Amino acid sequence: MLKDLVRKNRSYRRFYQDVKISESDLIEFVDLARLAPSAKNNQPLKYFISNTNETNSKIFETLAWAGYLTDWNGPIEGEKPSAYIIVFLDKNITDNNYCDHNLAVQNILLGAVEKEFGGCIIAAFNRKKIIEIVNPNKNIEPLLVLALGKPKEEINLYEINPDDDIKYWRNSEQIHQVPKRKLNDILINKNN
Amino acid sequence: MLKDLVRKNRSYRRFYQDVKISESDLIEFVDLARLAPSAKNNQPLKYFISNTNETNSKIFETLAWAGYLTDWNGPIEGEKPSAYIIVFLDKNITDNNYCDHNLAVQNILLGAVEKEFGGCIIAAFNRKKIIEIVNPNKNIEPLLVLALGKPKEEINLYEINPDDDIKYWRNSEQIHQVPKRKLNDILINKNN
Repeated sequence: MLKDLVRKNRSYRRFYQDVKISESDLIEFVDLARLAPSAKNNQPLKYFISNTNETNSKIFETLAWAGYLTDWNGPIEGEKPSAYIIVFLDKNITDNNYCDHNLAVQNILLGAVEKEFGGCIIAAFNRKKIIEIVNPNKNIEPLLVLALGKPKEEINLYEINPDDDIKYWRNSEQIHQVPKRKLNDILINKNN
Repeated sequence: MLKDLVRKNRSYRRFYQDVKISESDLIEFVDLARLAPSAKNNQPLKYFISNTNETNSKIFETLAWAGYLTDWNGPIEGEKPSAYIIVFLDKNITDNNYCDHNLAVQNILLGAVEKEFGGCIIAAFNRKKIIEIVNPNKNIEPLLVLALGKPKEEINLYEINPDDDIKYWRNSEQIHQVPKRKLNDILINKNN
């Protein structure tokens, strides 16, 4: 059921770091991305996969985590992602990806969840260092880093009213709390 | 299998117009969108659903179809979408949706495919008329129109080389042909 995958596709930021994601699984996720819709069918996205300790460590150093968790600097050793997929725009194809990447990314994340993994979309990263790690000689622009692994955290969704705070937070047991708007509040038909 | 849903999620532009999509199905699709990731968890998206002939006709008049099919003006009567979901940005929440909408849209489309429907993402529409149809008094901006229905066309994917033409086209039997880049060509690791 797609609904189960969609529900389980939360933004995970702590993982069982010793649980690997195989290269073939990562390539399968990229294949799901490949088949996502693309504006004007340009297909300007390129992907870099990593699942080795060496490259993972380099990528990890470029990332900023969880802006609303001001006391937390990101996952500790042992709980870091065991793989990454970095999504790039190939500027030789086009300068404008029309938000294509998020169509592809949602396929990747749902594919990861289907295999009992999960991930987090990271838009806050050191662009220059990412380009150095991947390849400085291509005319490509990093758009997002997807951090992937076997999730090591519990995430609780709860409903809020329209003017309530939307920031996620952690309770005293370190369970991640994510406020979500109610279905009726996002349906314009119910609010006209 | 997610892969089957992803494969079947093609951009359909002709439908069995008499096959309705129920309001409850459309609301379920919006619920899938509600659970998509959202940058900063802002959740600034709002949705308008339509499945009546009257509102569908008004929406249809605002749309432009299939830029590469220069001899085709869109689906004829009997083959038009039987439902629409229009995705809006609520500007009272934020001016910047960070491409959130495509995370939500992919969930909607996969949900539609799971129920044997399908759709097409339309970014070319008459903005003023869409706002008039939905509600001119809210501070909302239309981002995309999703055309939905039971697909009445066959779509064939075929692989291309990096410099080949990416425009979709129809063969003499009106079967829609969509060129897709090869997996190895979009994997930077294989091209460094």
